[in-house]
Amino acid sequence: EPMSQRKADHVRIAAEEAAADRSAGAFAALRLDHRALPELDLDEVDPSCEFLGHRLSFPFMMASMTGGADGQLRRINRNLAAAARRERVAMAVGSQRVMFSDPQARAAFDLRPLAPEVPLIANLGAVQLRQGMGIEECRAAVDVLAADGLYLHLNPLQEAVQREGTPTFGGLASRIGAVAEALDRPVLVKEVGAGLHPDDLRALIPAGVRYFDAAGAGGTSWSYVESRRGDDAERRARAAAFADWGVPAPQALRRLSPLRSEGATLIGSGGIRSGVDIARAMILGASLGSAARPLLAPAMESEDAVCAVIRRYREEFRLALFLLGCRRPEYLIGQEQWI
Amino acid sequence: EPMSQRKADHVRIAAEEAAADRSAGAFAALRLDHRALPELDLDEVDPSCEFLGHRLSFPFMMASMTGGADGQLRRINRNLAAAARRERVAMAVGSQRVMFSDPQARAAFDLRPLAPEVPLIANLGAVQLRQGMGIEECRAAVDVLAADGLYLHLNPLQEAVQREGTPTFGGLASRIGAVAEALDRPVLVKEVGAGLHPDDLRALIPAGVRYFDAAGAGGTSWSYVESRRGDDAERRARAAAFADWGVPAPQALRRLSPLRSEGATLIGSGGIRSGVDIARAMILGASLGSAARPLLAPAMESEDAVCAVIRRYREEFRLALFLLGCRRPEYLIGQEQWI
Amino acid sequence: EPMSQRKADHVRIAAEEAAADRSAGAFAALRLDHRALPELDLDEVDPSCEFLGHRLSFPFMMASMTGGADGQLRRINRNLAAAARRERVAMAVGSQRVMFSDPQARAAFDLRPLAPEVPLIANLGAVQLRQGMGIEECRAAVDVLAADGLYLHLNPLQEAVQREGTPTFGGLASRIGAVAEALDRPVLVKEVGAGLHPDDLRALIPAGVRYFDAAGAGGTSWSYVESRRGDDAERRARAAAFADWGVPAPQALRRLSPLRSEGATLIGSGGIRSGVDIARAMILGASLGSAARPLLAPAMESEDAVCAVIRRYREEFRLALFLLGCRRPEYLIGQEQWI
Amino acid sequence: EPMSQRKADHVRIAAEEAAADRSAGAFAALRLDHRALPELDLDEVDPSCEFLGHRLSFPFMMASMTGGADGQLRRINRNLAAAARRERVAMAVGSQRVMFSDPQARAAFDLRPLAPEVPLIANLGAVQLRQGMGIEECRAAVDVLAADGLYLHLNPLQEAVQREGTPTFGGLASRIGAVAEALDRPVLVKEVGAGLHPDDLRALIPAGVRYFDAAGAGGTSWSYVESRRGDDAERRARAAAFADWGVPAPQALRRLSPLRSEGATLIGSGGIRSGVDIARAMILGASLGSAARPLLAPAMESEDAVCAVIRRYREEFRLALFLLGCRRPEYLIGQEQWI
Ligand SMILES: Cc1cc2nc3c(=O)[nH]c(=O)nc-3n(C[C@H](O)[C@H](O)[C@H](O)COP(=O)(O)O)c2cc1C
Ligand SMILES: Cc1cc2nc3c(=O)[nH]c(=O)nc-3n(C[C@H](O)[C@H](O)[C@H](O)COP(=O)(O)O)c2cc1C
Ligand SMILES: Cc1cc2nc3c(=O)[nH]c(=O)nc-3n(C[C@H](O)[C@H](O)[C@H](O)COP(=O)(O)O)c2cc1C
Ligand SMILES: Cc1cc2nc3c(=O)[nH]c(=O)nc-3n(C[C@H](O)[C@H](O)[C@H](O)COP(=O)(O)O)c2cc1C
Repeated sequence: EPMSQRKADHVRIAAEEAAADRSAGAFAALRLDHRALPELDLDEVDPSCEFLGHRLSFPFMMASMTGGADGQLRRINRNLAAAARRERVAMAVGSQRVMFSDPQARAAFDLRPLAPEVPLIANLGAVQLRQGMGIEECRAAVDVLAADGLYLHLNPLQEAVQREGTPTFGGLASRIGAVAEALDRPVLVKEVGAGLHPDDLRALIPAGVRYFDAAGAGGTSWSYVESRRGDDAERRARAAAFADWGVPAPQALRRLSPLRSEGATLIGSGGIRSGVDIARAMILGASLGSAARPLLAPAMESEDAVCAVIRRYREEFRLALFLLGCRRPEYLIGQEQWI
Repeated sequence: EPMSQRKADHVRIAAEEAAADRSAGAFAALRLDHRALPELDLDEVDPSCEFLGHRLSFPFMMASMTGGADGQLRRINRNLAAAARRERVAMAVGSQRVMFSDPQARAAFDLRPLAPEVPLIANLGAVQLRQGMGIEECRAAVDVLAADGLYLHLNPLQEAVQREGTPTFGGLASRIGAVAEALDRPVLVKEVGAGLHPDDLRALIPAGVRYFDAAGAGGTSWSYVESRRGDDAERRARAAAFADWGVPAPQALRRLSPLRSEGATLIGSGGIRSGVDIARAMILGASLGSAARPLLAPAMESEDAVCAVIRRYREEFRLALFLLGCRRPEYLIGQEQWI
Repeated sequence: EPMSQRKADHVRIAAEEAAADRSAGAFAALRLDHRALPELDLDEVDPSCEFLGHRLSFPFMMASMTGGADGQLRRINRNLAAAARRERVAMAVGSQRVMFSDPQARAAFDLRPLAPEVPLIANLGAVQLRQGMGIEECRAAVDVLAADGLYLHLNPLQEAVQREGTPTFGGLASRIGAVAEALDRPVLVKEVGAGLHPDDLRALIPAGVRYFDAAGAGGTSWSYVESRRGDDAERRARAAAFADWGVPAPQALRRLSPLRSEGATLIGSGGIRSGVDIARAMILGASLGSAARPLLAPAMESEDAVCAVIRRYREEFRLALFLLGCRRPEYLIGQEQWI
Repeated sequence: EPMSQRKADHVRIAAEEAAADRSAGAFAALRLDHRALPELDLDEVDPSCEFLGHRLSFPFMMASMTGGADGQLRRINRNLAAAARRERVAMAVGSQRVMFSDPQARAAFDLRPLAPEVPLIANLGAVQLRQGMGIEECRAAVDVLAADGLYLHLNPLQEAVQREGTPTFGGLASRIGAVAEALDRPVLVKEVGAGLHPDDLRALIPAGVRYFDAAGAGGTSWSYVESRRGDDAERRARAAAFADWGVPAPQALRRLSPLRSEGATLIGSGGIRSGVDIARAMILGASLGSAARPLLAPAMESEDAVCAVIRRYREEFRLALFLLGCRRPEYLIGQEQWI
């Protein structure tokens, strides 16, 4: 099975099957602390923020999803990138590994011209550092995008249940550290839906990593997606058994939050489904919220459709700030007493 | 869209759509502490109380709903006022802003002749103090009613999601304070269904406000109502996203309760749906319970229909007092050990 | 409406309408502490106990239900009494007030010949001590039954919602005390389904009462029953509003339990629906379990039908003792660590 | 009713009726502590372990189910034994009592040739030590299997609700102790689905027993099975009343866990339904997980069908170890902070 087929399957299942989204509304269940007298005007609320040297219209990143030479995958990323520019939000691309096996795919990541002034983040699977990939490939991934940083994703569950997976996670911390040291852009480490553990951060902070995307459970479930493809019934059943594995995203963030004092900047993802959820993630410790699946179907449609979702999130986020009496997003970070 | 059309819409949606009432029975879930041996006769229970210089047959106020020149709005208020007199309960009118733009509406607030001996409370949006309204208008609103007090409502969520809204809440505390000082009647501050915050009271008590209506979430949801009108789909979706925003009314009261020792008198509203709920609100710190939506459909019908609801509440309240071994309503206030 | 009509209504509604039983399985939700190695034989378990000078085959009393001249009411009590004898359990009759207005009803309480060797308990409404009833009537109620004790029931909620009710509970503690002192049999005080309060016991223990039937919420709801009869819609609605009023039976017992050290003997009722529930009630502090409604339909049928229910409860109770490693029922009392 | 008929009934009901399995997912409800950076390769995870002198491919035992001369019972055990060998897991046979009354049944337990290199465990009801059975029978049960240990099961509830039962559990601790002393293989004590109590272990550890299978509630319910057979309606109703009796398996394990420091080795069973559940049981204190019902229908079918279930459990278990960053199963034991 070629990699692009796998990606096409992933995208199709994630976009079409509602059950891929395990969001039990874990974020939405958290009530926020309304102020009747916010003592500010809605106009005074400025939801913008800095991220990796760029100004965002609000603390939001379109999470890593895809990339490749195939027509649909290209269209998705071009729509996301154009929307990122128009709405001034960050964008992370999906894994770029394909560009090392399929030279045509390389061009597909040439998105910087479409989005010159927003953070673009490259993406590779950290596990590839054990499969022959090294600093050269990391640099190449960054360069093709003229990226502002490189996501290395940790996906032990996905590698373990995926037919093509290589669940080789031994000695990864030091290899990630080596990349962090050698690369001239920041490395960001993320999960893909089961959550980072505080001990994961404790291993990576000394190695020089500063950005962490908790990517907890409660949003898109890769095990579920894997359980829906291929014809190996045993493998599919095994994937299904882990469809709800992992630490729910709000809880994942909450317990990473203390590590901010050791230099970690947190990103919240996994089931973020509104601008209020972004505010919730920030209250739990994140500097930014991020979502993948809610943007997938719109990205298959048009730039406008993606922009509409982002605008809705921004408006909801702005209102939440206002109703919490918060002029600026950074005041939210870690204010757990507001839940 | 003229203001009276907006009001007519509000009234229609609030009255007709059951989902406008988000009451998840938050009050009803609280079990009270039954006494098998109350050591008193039901006849000895005297549910009456003082409020703003008048005697009420029990601690209940019909919450602010409406007012205007339009036939139906007039009928609603006349029915409420006549019932207030007959059943001896307090009545607050809806926002009187309309009377400054529509002179005909002025007459609609001339309700004192209908209800000479009960507390009547005027009502204006506090946010108007940033929109040109000042002490003169406050006095006018009080005068037309010969009111015993003036409600200034805080509705940041409503102003933010309403098409015609002016979400300008900066510097309101001092402007409210100025009104409180200049007016010869007490100013009461309320929310409209998302709940007052203890810090809101901490800002207003030093400014001279003494009466606070918590108006928490769990009753009529203005965001829901807004999500049901107009043809701007984005705006409607945004309102819908906030349909359950706010602090549930029982919790809102419970955390305002300590501020009674700093001079605050509390009113409980937001999902009060029986006389037992009034007792629950008082146990959580309120001196009075208040409800809006349960009276709306009856008020569109007749004075008698309103009276029937009030009588039911009073009887339920009287029984609750009896079964708690309480001769007088004021003994309930803040007795949290009874929950 | 004659009293016997009211009773017939009560019996019919309680027996026929499943919703009269509000039992949310509050007892059944409590898991007991199984012993795999009970270190005894089932045969060694002796579930019998003493109560009011008689030996019971297990700690169970048929709760007060009815009594009167009417054919069906007579049949119910005769079936209950005959079953009490056969199965050796205690029996309480329903309120005997009717015998003071209807001389024919007197004979209906002549149940001692049917049940010579078990505890029979007379029953009157404590509130009647404020309605002209005195020690003479109490003695008469005891005498007609040759009773071993007199239940005085406290039913403020029932008196308040019942058309014919006299909710006059002032000064009852001392009147109950006077009866306790004057009567040569023990007085037992009970609720009828809303639960006794620790403060109720604190008022009655110094007055000489030693037996208390918690009769908490979760079983037959008198308010519900009242809400189903008569044609006064307002009264019915009021009763319905209180259908779930009261302290759930397990919680009621648990908080009375400490008063055993001040001389109180507790009886558990309100939603007891199996022999295991009797064990649960005892673990929460009761010396005896009691149930009404589960015996009502059987009692309308035959002595045998009543016996079958009692036998089932006894077998379940005996097994529960065995599985808890308990030879004797009294070892259960107050062993809250077993829940 | 002959014993073999009873066994055939048990097997049929347990296999066919889904409600026999009370598993409310008590294990599955426990979320485990995912590591995104496990710092090991899936290949490095070695799920094998020692048990009673044999190496298992992972910590799993097929729980006691059946045994007898009857064709189907033989087939079940032969399939289980062959699968035990192929997949290298432990196997416990069902009660061997039948072999003392039916000489033909003896041969049915001659399973060692089918499974030469895995732990085989004999099984007798401890209660039989009060019904004439002694050390000779225990030796015979071990010998016929060439067993590595002898399970003595404690089933007071089953004996009490089963028509043929002998609920004689007095003095069993010392009799079990005598067997433990006299037998040259370890004695293991288990429940059959209601859970061992810490005090049960406290009685048996000094008597020389070291292995305990908690066998808590939440899996196959014997009371339920009993409630579905025979024509004595009263007995069936009684059994039904106890269908959910007992301590849930996770809780049972958790409170036995501290007794490991006094020499107890724990086995977890009762509702284990996946390899992740085995990991959960170990985190709660078990050294091994065990399941019965999930293997029953497969064992009626074929050796292959049994192997398929075991392989699925092993793979799930191996993945769980990997995702917890655990190279070896023994690191899991008692790590409650991972839940
Ligand atoms: C279709 C799809 C493809 C994804 N591909 C990647 C990927 O290549 N690299 C990566 O780090 N995460 C990938 N993710 C994971 C997301 O970036 C994100 O961590 C996760 O889905 C949680 O976000 P959500 O609940 O908002 O979807 C993908 C998610 C989706 C839905
Ligand atoms: C139809 C309607 C109109 C209302 N208009 C006003 C208003 O003009 N001013 C105000 O302060 N509150 C207004 N409210 C809010 C109520 O006074 C009250 O705070 C809130 O509805 C909670 O009460 P409820 O849950 O019992 O309806 C209105 C409520 C309703 C249902
Ligand atoms: C039909 C019926 C009649 C009752 N009549 C009396 C009564 O006359 N006196 C009394 O003390 N309690 C009376 N009770 C209350 C019961 O004695 C008992 O306290 C209550 O029903 C809780 O028990 P249960 O849930 O098992 O029904 C009656 C209950 C029923 C169901
Ligand atoms: C059909 C069947 C027969 C059983 N027979 C026995 C037995 O003879 N001896 C015994 O100790 N346990 C017996 N058990 C109990 C199991 O060994 C185990 O303790 C219990 O079923 C919990 O496991 P489960 O929930 O995975 O089924 C039997 C269980 C089943 C389902």
